[in-house]
Amino acid sequence: MKVYLLAHTPIPEKVVASAAKLCYSDSTAGELMDGLTDEGTAKYLRTLGEMGHESPVEHASFTFAIEGVSRSFLAQITRHRLASYSVQSQRYVRLDNFEYVTPPALTEDPEVLALYEETMKHDAEVYNAISDKLKAKYTAEYVQQGLSEKAAAGKAEKRAIEDARFVLPNACTTQMVVTMNVRSLRHLFQLRCCNRAQWEIHQVADEMLKLVYQVAPALFESSGPSCVAMGRCPEGKMTCGHFAEVQEYYKKLKEEARK
Amino acid sequence: MKVYLLAHTPIPEKVVASAAKLCYSDSTAGELMDGLTDEGTAKYLRTLGEMGHESPVEHASFTFAIEGVSRSFLAQITRHRLASYSVQSQRYVRLDNFEYVTPPALTEDPEVLALYEETMKHDAEVYNAISDKLKAKYTAEYVQQGLSEKAAAGKAEKRAIEDARFVLPNACTTQMVVTMNVRSLRHLFQLRCCNRAQWEIHQVADEMLKLVYQVAPALFESSGPSCVAMGRCPEGKMTCGHFAEVQEYYKKLKEEARK
Amino acid sequence: MKVYLLAHTPIPEKVVASAAKLCYSDSTAGELMDGLTDEGTAKYLRTLGEMGHESPVEHASFTFAIEGVSRSFLAQITRHRLASYSVQSQRYVRLDNFEYVTPPALTEDPEVLALYEETMKHDAEVYNAISDKLKAKYTAEYVQQGLSEKAAAGKAEKRAIEDARFVLPNACTTQMVVTMNVRSLRHLFQLRCCNRAQWEIHQVADEMLKLVYQVAPALFESSGPSCVAMGRCPEGKMTCGHFAEVQEYYKKLKEEARK
Amino acid sequence: MKVYLLAHTPIPEKVVASAAKLCYSDSTAGELMDGLTDEGTAKYLRTLGEMGHESPVEHASFTFAIEGVSRSFLAQITRHRLASYSVQSQRYVRLDNFEYVTPPALTEDPEVLALYEETMKHDAEVYNAISDKLKAKYTAEYVQQGLSEKAAAGKAEKRAIEDARFVLPNACTTQMVVTMNVRSLRHLFQLRCCNRAQWEIHQVADEMLKLVYQVAPALFESSGPSCVAMGRCPEGKMTCGHFAEVQEYYKKLKEEARK
Repeated sequence: MKVYLLAHTPIPEKVVASAAKLCYSDSTAGELMDGLTDEGTAKYLRTLGEMGHESPVEHASFTFAIEGVSRSFLAQITRHRLASYSVQSQRYVRLDNFEYVTPPALTEDPEVLALYEETMKHDAEVYNAISDKLKAKYTAEYVQQGLSEKAAAGKAEKRAIEDARFVLPNACTTQMVVTMNVRSLRHLFQLRCCNRAQWEIHQVADEMLKLVYQVAPALFESSGPSCVAMGRCPEGKMTCGHFAEVQEYYKKLKEEARK
Repeated sequence: MKVYLLAHTPIPEKVVASAAKLCYSDSTAGELMDGLTDEGTAKYLRTLGEMGHESPVEHASFTFAIEGVSRSFLAQITRHRLASYSVQSQRYVRLDNFEYVTPPALTEDPEVLALYEETMKHDAEVYNAISDKLKAKYTAEYVQQGLSEKAAAGKAEKRAIEDARFVLPNACTTQMVVTMNVRSLRHLFQLRCCNRAQWEIHQVADEMLKLVYQVAPALFESSGPSCVAMGRCPEGKMTCGHFAEVQEYYKKLKEEARK
Repeated sequence: MKVYLLAHTPIPEKVVASAAKLCYSDSTAGELMDGLTDEGTAKYLRTLGEMGHESPVEHASFTFAIEGVSRSFLAQITRHRLASYSVQSQRYVRLDNFEYVTPPALTEDPEVLALYEETMKHDAEVYNAISDKLKAKYTAEYVQQGLSEKAAAGKAEKRAIEDARFVLPNACTTQMVVTMNVRSLRHLFQLRCCNRAQWEIHQVADEMLKLVYQVAPALFESSGPSCVAMGRCPEGKMTCGHFAEVQEYYKKLKEEARK
Repeated sequence: MKVYLLAHTPIPEKVVASAAKLCYSDSTAGELMDGLTDEGTAKYLRTLGEMGHESPVEHASFTFAIEGVSRSFLAQITRHRLASYSVQSQRYVRLDNFEYVTPPALTEDPEVLALYEETMKHDAEVYNAISDKLKAKYTAEYVQQGLSEKAAAGKAEKRAIEDARFVLPNACTTQMVVTMNVRSLRHLFQLRCCNRAQWEIHQVADEMLKLVYQVAPALFESSGPSCVAMGRCPEGKMTCGHFAEVQEYYKKLKEEARK
């Protein structure tokens, strides 16, 4: 799994701070931005957070490339609806000898791992076999309808893999470009950096947090799982109970990101 | 695949018509609703559509239960973000001998079908084997940590299936509850009732259209793929080219729904 | 100011509970709904709230008619973007002798009140004068272009009031139809039932809370300002400091709504 | 009225093009971006538009400062909900001798203009008078409760202007920071660059279009009112009927922006 920051709003902290200040000021946004020092910005964003004034952070957004993640991950992250996604399509991209994610826990037992890898290999063979068989059949049909061999093959392949992909497993990797504004990101971190989140999306969320913290530490100063962001766990009886460790973990993650 | 209408805004056409009329009137919403006959409502909604005033239809929403659809379907429908979803979780629900969707095209070739069914069976066996093996291992761990056998088994199962599900195929069925307002639904129909949409989501969208058309024909009078809704195909060179057949198909679908 | 409940998702609590249960179950939504008693539903919704699983409540939505509120109120409520609005248009509806909201504090000082009422009267006269003058001028133009007197007058009036309305005060009343789902409503209550909210939107939010609580007490059991909903004030130094009174107030509001 | 571009996603066209290409490719987003020439990007974005694949343009967003616009404008633009707003607050900012927008049509008739200006002046005097009177009263109350003169005055002013602002007219200017992604912007242009839109938001929308076109011409090549964007008017009988002039106007606007 790899996460890259492709693009983001330039000087995101100053954009947010000047937008927020505008609400309470008769100066213009330009004047406010000119008047902002780095320290003043950081201090102001902290105050804003403490007052619970959340909407101004929406003015800054971040665009990530996420690679080598499973289709299970895709199903989870796309539930965050205040975001934009472009995802590699299994309808348009043929996945011969597909790559796949192996859950770390499966590698601890050689027998389980062997079974898992054999299944992945089997799925890949069946995907290829069905794709090839259907493609040949459809190509022949299209050629008979008068299409050139090349055009027929292109059309046939798309139609073939659209159905062949039903055998592809959740483990099969995909890649995507994701854009979220700071408000959405903070919410994502609250839910997905939590110990109760599934391991893969937890890992990706941690990577995203490192990347945005490097660029805009003042905007993500208190970001992390809910217990870090709010100072307490909101999940009641379902709490993981490891409050202190989690606090420490995210403190270190940010210190390292800052380097 | 089955689609049910679980709930919807009562008298959706009158709610929408009175909200829309309010924009241009000094009567109250209550007075406007009282003054609406069935015919007057239908006529007014038609005019509203022709003027392109889209937002009032958002006041009516529809809640569906969708069962027996693939995880590929899930990946597609959840890309519609102006909607609410509750989906059966593969992290919480153990899927022994899972059910699966078979693409119709695969049934046309007995050899392909046999290969497909064998793969599904194999995936189910591997899923069960990995789930059982990990569950046993985790249960032992939790018991050693002092949990009761029952508590240990419950916790262990969740942790086991969370990773075992990586072998589950796209074909594996799921079920969900989906709520969309009329504006979102119309957009969904434009994209997903189109001949270029993937067959499974196309079928579900057709079912949804039948169900809402039965309840609120005036709100969905011109609904269907873009070529039906807008009178022309917006996909340029990618058009299916079957405009007349598509028109006819949706005319009939609505006639039958009306019965 | 008056707030009415125009429509809402039928049996909203059972719709939400069955959608939420579906996530963790291999039963269908229909089976789950059939299995729900009133008490079981209420208990389940409470557990759901405690676990922080928020999305299922989006399946139920409520549509309100809100009348006799100021344009200041409009500016505030429309900042809630996960909602649908139809608002009486000042471009299309002529507001002769417009009605207006009087802030209660202004009525405490007879001199201030007189000044306020005189200003409202003056604004109304100027609005009428400008509307009439421009309308006459534009009507003449359109008649000269060949329109009938009636068509000309209609077109002219719209064009005239579009500019005349620039003199209308914030106090001028408007009316609207608003639809929100339960998740949006809960968020609205957190922000707008707060003592720090402006008095008019606070009053409207209280009315909305009463109305939805009557219909679906289990869905709004812990609703109210943040201090009621979360058990603590999130506004830091800006807190009103009246935690106990606020708790008591919303306890009573709900008791009365229940009757 | 003034509109500035405060910030935007860097190289927005390449970010969008690489995200879109990713859907149909097995290359990574980074590789795709590296492979993009300026011409290739422009050509690809054109194809994307023709195919109706809209979502990738959401990855690029633009942040504007808009100054000297009326509260009527505010009411209209905030109806675009897929956007982020920070607006100068009439609850927090005292507007002594407020500035106001004068609709151009009012300036054509000296009598109307005089009436308008006199009303604005009168509103300003009343606003100041009510603000001062209430502030003095509340300050005395707070001092009696033990607050310092300064703290009392600050608290009193906020409370006073919150109610005094009910006399402020729609014409009263405000300023805001607005962020929208390209998809939202295109939709805004379709509705608000239209001849049927109100003149003030039409002007602002034209300014916004100029600014974004300068930065990302390929993303806004076909942007403008619906008739420009779609090649036909969707408003049926309500059409302005000036198709050719409108086409010409936006062609020129873009040519000038390009310089």
